[in-house]
Amino acid sequence: MVSQVRVAGVGMTPFGKSPERSAREMFGDAADEAIEDAAVTPDQVEEVFYGNFMGEFAEQQGHQGPLAAEAAGVNAPATRIESACASSGAAVRMGVDRIRAGMADVVLVGGAERMTNLSTAEGTAGLAAAADALWEINQGVTFPGAYSLMANRYFEKYGGDREDLAHVAVKNHDHAVNNELAQFQMEITVEKVLDAVQVCSPFGLFDCSPMSDGGSAAVLVSEEFAQDHGLAAPVAITGTGQGSDSLALHDRESITGTPAADRAAESAYEDAGIGPDDVDVAEVHDCFTVAEVLAIESLGFYEKGEGIKAARSGETTIDGDLPVNLSGGLKAKGHPVGATGGAQISEMTKLLRGDHVNSDAVSDATVGLTHNAGGTVASCVVNVLEVVE
Amino acid sequence: MVSQVRVAGVGMTPFGKSPERSAREMFGDAADEAIEDAAVTPDQVEEVFYGNFMGEFAEQQGHQGPLAAEAAGVNAPATRIESACASSGAAVRMGVDRIRAGMADVVLVGGAERMTNLSTAEGTAGLAAAADALWEINQGVTFPGAYSLMANRYFEKYGGDREDLAHVAVKNHDHAVNNELAQFQMEITVEKVLDAVQVCSPFGLFDCSPMSDGGSAAVLVSEEFAQDHGLAAPVAITGTGQGSDSLALHDRESITGTPAADRAAESAYEDAGIGPDDVDVAEVHDCFTVAEVLAIESLGFYEKGEGIKAARSGETTIDGDLPVNLSGGLKAKGHPVGATGGAQISEMTKLLRGDHVNSDAVSDATVGLTHNAGGTVASCVVNVLEVVE
Repeated sequence: MVSQVRVAGVGMTPFGKSPERSAREMFGDAADEAIEDAAVTPDQVEEVFYGNFMGEFAEQQGHQGPLAAEAAGVNAPATRIESACASSGAAVRMGVDRIRAGMADVVLVGGAERMTNLSTAEGTAGLAAAADALWEINQGVTFPGAYSLMANRYFEKYGGDREDLAHVAVKNHDHAVNNELAQFQMEITVEKVLDAVQVCSPFGLFDCSPMSDGGSAAVLVSEEFAQDHGLAAPVAITGTGQGSDSLALHDRESITGTPAADRAAESAYEDAGIGPDDVDVAEVHDCFTVAEVLAIESLGFYEKGEGIKAARSGETTIDGDLPVNLSGGLKAKGHPVGATGGAQISEMTKLLRGDHVNSDAVSDATVGLTHNAGGTVASCVVNVLEVVE
Repeated sequence: MVSQVRVAGVGMTPFGKSPERSAREMFGDAADEAIEDAAVTPDQVEEVFYGNFMGEFAEQQGHQGPLAAEAAGVNAPATRIESACASSGAAVRMGVDRIRAGMADVVLVGGAERMTNLSTAEGTAGLAAAADALWEINQGVTFPGAYSLMANRYFEKYGGDREDLAHVAVKNHDHAVNNELAQFQMEITVEKVLDAVQVCSPFGLFDCSPMSDGGSAAVLVSEEFAQDHGLAAPVAITGTGQGSDSLALHDRESITGTPAADRAAESAYEDAGIGPDDVDVAEVHDCFTVAEVLAIESLGFYEKGEGIKAARSGETTIDGDLPVNLSGGLKAKGHPVGATGGAQISEMTKLLRGDHVNSDAVSDATVGLTHNAGGTVASCVVNVLEVVE
């Protein structure tokens, strides 16, 4: 009998600019919060999976797993998981595996990233390591450029325009207004998005997630551990899925979709024994506005070519049928890349437990989903969270 | 009932200098060999765990998991595991978890590293990212320097000298003479080791493993899959263990021992249900000669302070009671860091199956152990392999 994996506690630092803080330090803060929230002690933690992407560029520091554990006050096997911006989503999945394998009852997962100590040029160069250095970066492709190719091709194939995308950014900023952990607690308007300085057509500044610093953590426990120790852990991770694809866009079967996310979603739904219609609320990887559109299609919430209308129609807003990115998403909450997947777990757990600032909007929700992507979705991890008590 | 994990196939590239080859390309070659050796097809592989440490420095390439899978012709979730020089040992452990969790029946594990395209100074700087950037590297510590501190302190506490260490290098070169995959197929003498150019006292050139390029892979399958598909997979991974420690030496409880390896060994023995006396043959992480000494003590083969005598006495040579590093070890086989842990699995599987060039020396062996360390053993993974059929 495989154990059900519970989220016993979560934590995250405020996302934003704290260039003087090391990744280990930020993870330590998030982990302290998660461990306290879980009502466990550091010495009960049996394993650490830690996501970090840019440590070599930002801090000349690899081998961050043991550093992360030490910052959390934990003496346990600790491993860095690197799947570009999906690093901590993948770390969460590893934690689920370890508990299901019966190898641990208490696992600390999460991640951290320090980015704003770099110049924009340095940061862009560091992020570029998530794309194909031989076939893309050498040709001058950057991430805004790669995603803009996807957006423009999507427009050509399915329709839609910059204004549709602008509604994604406006929605996510709206959601973040009261989220004290978010980098940008400010509303924006469609006009402001459309009038912003252009980054790479069709993207203006507000189509892009920011450079951010931050850490995130979650304590995962087996159901038996939760019961034996009387932990309040009403949320379970009932399904995980991951998919991979070519890093280089030119080798993909599609660039108007995200096949790795299709596969991750399919696996996660099968693992959890649910389907897209069962999902009440989702946190998805909106590193660019178009990325949210592609995500909600890959997750099966919309047919291919239909996701572009979702934000504009209001269906994915806080008052809509399927609120997406109630945290503010990467766009407004911020995107310290190695921390993002773990932060999605933190935000979703709070949304489902009822202690998130936006919980009231989804008070009946029992099924939440997180979608964390790396590169131009060459990696994708989908986790399904359910209220089980 | 947790499934027993079998090693169905293994592969590795020759280790040495191939600076023109990318890490993905080398992993692809190793994976092709492992997949063929396993008699499975790439589309049967359900998951890839890939170790790489220095990709950001050597190739400006992170996010190598999907690249590695693609090079192997595999379309499956693929994740890069980074624990410095223990990266692919940790990847193997992840693969064992995934099968034990019942989440996959066929997992491709291994790693690759490209290093010799870098200058010695660049390579040393890249490797330094495995130590603590804030507390060690900023002070000018390099890896030869850090390990020399450990060696000198060991000498002071327990005795022993450079000549004892020289026997480790001589032994491992002897073992590699007929290993066509080894970087150095040449015998050396104690005099040659002692007379070599000094790197960092007490280490001369031959106390240090080389910069190398290479890839390694193994196909792990569940026992049920092996049975259902009629695979010859006589070797099982019956135990895994991992330990972590402070990256910085000054925070360790000991620098004349390797506590992370003590913990990894203890966990692996418990997991396998064996003890040190049951081990017939071992591959250990001899990045420097003293590292082998510390390894065989942490593994419980020798009391603390006694391991220094092992090579000189002949107990760990090919004709000894417990042959260590029959592949030639990192010293003579080479050390493409992200590939090393996987290569240990490849060499040990062949030693136990009887198709290694040095198998005759251990023809009665049924239990093998691999010890893969990261940094100054801030990470350590121990895997136990047993002949089960």
